[in-house]
Amino acid sequence: MPSAHPAEDTAQTARTVPDTDIAALLERGRALSTPVLRAAVDRLAAPMDTVAAYHFGWIDAAGNPSHGDGGKAVRPALALLSAEAAGAAPEVGVPGAVAVELVHNFSLLHDDLMDGDEQRRHRDTVWKVHGPAQAILVGDALFALANELLLELGTVEAGRAARRLTTATRKLIDGQAQDISFEHRERVTVEECLEMEGNKTGALLACAVSIGAVLGGADDRTADILESYGHHLGLAFQAVDDLLGIWGDPESTGKQTWSDLRQRKKSLPVVAALAADGPASARLGELLAADAKSSDFDTFSEEEFAVRAALIEEAGGREWTAQEARRQHAVAIGALDRVDMPREVREQLVALADFVVVRKR
Amino acid sequence: MPSAHPAEDTAQTARTVPDTDIAALLERGRALSTPVLRAAVDRLAAPMDTVAAYHFGWIDAAGNPSHGDGGKAVRPALALLSAEAAGAAPEVGVPGAVAVELVHNFSLLHDDLMDGDEQRRHRDTVWKVHGPAQAILVGDALFALANELLLELGTVEAGRAARRLTTATRKLIDGQAQDISFEHRERVTVEECLEMEGNKTGALLACAVSIGAVLGGADDRTADILESYGHHLGLAFQAVDDLLGIWGDPESTGKQTWSDLRQRKKSLPVVAALAADGPASARLGELLAADAKSSDFDTFSEEEFAVRAALIEEAGGREWTAQEARRQHAVAIGALDRVDMPREVREQLVALADFVVVRKR
Repeated sequence: MPSAHPAEDTAQTARTVPDTDIAALLERGRALSTPVLRAAVDRLAAPMDTVAAYHFGWIDAAGNPSHGDGGKAVRPALALLSAEAAGAAPEVGVPGAVAVELVHNFSLLHDDLMDGDEQRRHRDTVWKVHGPAQAILVGDALFALANELLLELGTVEAGRAARRLTTATRKLIDGQAQDISFEHRERVTVEECLEMEGNKTGALLACAVSIGAVLGGADDRTADILESYGHHLGLAFQAVDDLLGIWGDPESTGKQTWSDLRQRKKSLPVVAALAADGPASARLGELLAADAKSSDFDTFSEEEFAVRAALIEEAGGREWTAQEARRQHAVAIGALDRVDMPREVREQLVALADFVVVRKR
Repeated sequence: MPSAHPAEDTAQTARTVPDTDIAALLERGRALSTPVLRAAVDRLAAPMDTVAAYHFGWIDAAGNPSHGDGGKAVRPALALLSAEAAGAAPEVGVPGAVAVELVHNFSLLHDDLMDGDEQRRHRDTVWKVHGPAQAILVGDALFALANELLLELGTVEAGRAARRLTTATRKLIDGQAQDISFEHRERVTVEECLEMEGNKTGALLACAVSIGAVLGGADDRTADILESYGHHLGLAFQAVDDLLGIWGDPESTGKQTWSDLRQRKKSLPVVAALAADGPASARLGELLAADAKSSDFDTFSEEEFAVRAALIEEAGGREWTAQEARRQHAVAIGALDRVDMPREVREQLVALADFVVVRKR
């Protein structure tokens, strides 16, 4: 039976580093990358600098300084560890950390607008506060800044890093295109869903784990193996996200209850449940097919979503997804054996993988 | 007195190459770059490949092959000449030509959506046909493809070219931000308008003129001088565009009559007219200030726009802008004296500059 919290039991066997160290690791990533990120955003012409500052939680909608929730900052932490994995100082990974964060936030700005999401990190989204044009424009600007930051380093390594980031960004965009197309389709296979999530989440996490190493002079083989860890970590991350998107606590996630069901997302628990045999899967299929044509969908009550969530669970979609998170977690950890790196760095990458699958937001 | 056609008398003294050669030059740019562009677009995941093919005019809205108007293709022609300016074969400039075209079309896709423009090149715009999400997504994808195409060359020169393209793209985005902000302001100075146009039009044309040379191994000094030619050519181009945006023939431009006035654009003729002394300027200022608050603006008749256009002309905004096109044209041509290049290449760059200021669409 799945536990009360989405994936809390997924990584108990693998844990090697206490939670406090994870907090310190994430804090280090934030502390080293935020000043560079802020300086990059300051380059933007008005009013894009203000809009970006609002998006990052540095100011509120009225323009007053705020200490908003800037997200978990897993990617910057990974980019610094990535530099250390190649034997370089963590600072070497900073331009990579910032470039990846810029691309990540470019995609959030555009995706929130495309998906019509009104809330992110407990605050109104940029398009909601500053309008669609600013969401498009500032997203574009952050994407351009990411490349600028790397390419102005002017080194061969920076060119290689920029190339990997560009490839990851293209996959990210492919993934968003697939995600959107799934919302208009009645059926999506588990394989299609995993491919979409590999593009939408795996590619940029993979790049975060290779970019510091590339900037530190790692060869392509090392970078590819680190990307393999990151790719599977991303799939584990997304499986947990998909669980939280249905069963997450709104207080923790900052999203509505049954968030992904309200958006008709064909996330892993849903497609796995629909792919199963048995009456719960069949009944779920009927309900979702009817929902797709229903004009009342927008006024559905909590209970109606609860019924669908219960059917997904009964059909095994919740448990399958929790297992999938554990499977991807194991593959990610396994990749680390194929590359030489300092023991502490490996331990921290393992700890971060554990953190990703047990998190509650 | 301004001539009946926007800028037909601007470049008679400078013309050195017959029109037929310009057509051949543009056709060479199109012929060498289009196959590479199409192959790049084919890399996009469905349905983005189809949406992009529609945007470029290769298929119609129903998906049938078409031979749409892909634009003038001035930028590809410039990128190939740019390679030749550095003593390289025109083919060396092709990845640069395609990358610049991809960035140009990324900006068209996003700008048309932000500006609410429903028509481009005599066809419905992408957001109108395929929806806003596809316009955002495919724009993002084209931008990423541009970098990918350059960086996968894997050379130091390609890294330098990508850096210049990224800088140009950031300016392009700054320019669009300025353009949008101007629409909400009552007054914009001529200097602010020129700065905006330098960013929005000058930067990418400048990059087109340097990118082939950089790929061909030119040093930064040479590339900077070529960019200076391109920057001023861009400002001349935009001045002509601003004339066409008010007085252009809809049959040629593919836009509505008084297009820029309908969109309340603070283009050069408008800001120059408002900056002038005299009763026409004062009356224009009163009218535009009232228009900004008018709830009937969307139902204005042809005559009401004609009155405003006549006041702009009477206040000298039309003539000032035609002169500005000639001034920028002269500065662009002058820059070519500061760099060594084959005589035929220089002649063709001069001829292209002439073409840009006499064009009617």
